[in-house]
Amino acid sequence: MSQPAVLAFDVFGTVVDWYRPVCAEVRRHCPQVDADAFTLAWRAGYQPAMRRVMSGELPWMTVDELHLLILRELLQRFQVDGLEEETIARLNGVWHRLDPWPDSVEGLRRLKSKYMICTLSNGNIGLLANMARHAGLPWDCILSAEIFRAYKPDPATYLGVAGIFRLAPGEVMMVAAHQDDLAAARACGLKTAYIERPEEYGPRRPKDVSDNGLNTFHAGSLVSLADMLGV
Amino acid sequence: MSQPAVLAFDVFGTVVDWYRPVCAEVRRHCPQVDADAFTLAWRAGYQPAMRRVMSGELPWMTVDELHLLILRELLQRFQVDGLEEETIARLNGVWHRLDPWPDSVEGLRRLKSKYMICTLSNGNIGLLANMARHAGLPWDCILSAEIFRAYKPDPATYLGVAGIFRLAPGEVMMVAAHQDDLAAARACGLKTAYIERPEEYGPRRPKDVSDNGLNTFHAGSLVSLADMLGV
Repeated sequence: MSQPAVLAFDVFGTVVDWYRPVCAEVRRHCPQVDADAFTLAWRAGYQPAMRRVMSGELPWMTVDELHLLILRELLQRFQVDGLEEETIARLNGVWHRLDPWPDSVEGLRRLKSKYMICTLSNGNIGLLANMARHAGLPWDCILSAEIFRAYKPDPATYLGVAGIFRLAPGEVMMVAAHQDDLAAARACGLKTAYIERPEEYGPRRPKDVSDNGLNTFHAGSLVSLADMLGV
Repeated sequence: MSQPAVLAFDVFGTVVDWYRPVCAEVRRHCPQVDADAFTLAWRAGYQPAMRRVMSGELPWMTVDELHLLILRELLQRFQVDGLEEETIARLNGVWHRLDPWPDSVEGLRRLKSKYMICTLSNGNIGLLANMARHAGLPWDCILSAEIFRAYKPDPATYLGVAGIFRLAPGEVMMVAAHQDDLAAARACGLKTAYIERPEEYGPRRPKDVSDNGLNTFHAGSLVSLADMLGV
């Protein structure tokens, strides 16, 4: 097998845990709501909101703006009244302060020793850069939907990574904990690596992380992917 | 004085030395030419080429493509015949393999301990990411003309950095060894720091690095800027 030159990482869920930090921040600012349900609804609102942008129903927005749009709807739906604008902004900013999975920093450092490692996330650049500082993620380069003006799974994003580095699609490997992301990358000719994150939706809601046999690699963690790649 | 939150760095000449590595690579592949003259002509061709893009005379190009366009003209002008395409590509790639000034890596590490540090260069993202790996530059984030589809000194680039981080222009400080770059940043409301690089055009061609009194800081090196900022 030819080696990839660049590893492009999905971030939310793959490199960082969003469930626990968002839950904790919701609990802090809105003690009266079911933080688990609120957190899952916030995350679940993300895909439909992006689809509304991509269909042209909404203008181009960063994920920060989408998160805020969804948050305002949820505050109404969960009947949270009277939060100050500063608190709402602080709560929305929790997506900048997510924590790495225990293996992420070591795994990325090892992979970086041989490969160019970049993000390919729908998160905006500022969000991803703040998160990298918070979580100690040693990216070579932050690539985002914001650069390509298209969200994953639009082919413009996967092919955009190859274009940035003047590589053929097969020289880029998409790394993600989501089979739909990887399927779209594969359709563009990228290599793919699936990372098992059984607790993405919280410790009490295990996710199916079985091997579908379609990816170049299937790994239990980023450290395990580094082992498989011999770095 | 209010503190900046983000430091945006010019790269060619400010953080890395282009003269020596380019001269050496020209000497290696074209031993028959005056490498000093060839190197200066290559760099001098860069501004007019960007102006042709910004005026619409040429389509949008990355700096890699501009460097190649200028290189082909220079090979003709300096009567270098018969270089293979692979050698031309290798020679053009020297701009990805520039060396940091002796103080750059330490200075950036210290500045990064308190500030978000990003590039704001006309170089394309792939070039800057390769250079960061080659030279050990610990950027939080690589921002480039390629993202804003405009070259410095277009205001879209300076204001673009503030926009990426949702900051007021005065919360961003442009760091550069070039007064024209800093003047354009200042006109957009950014803070500015001038870095003295007297040998930018080679050790035998000292550059005027005197303080014009207009910048927020005037420093002899990136380490000296870190001292001034107390980090």
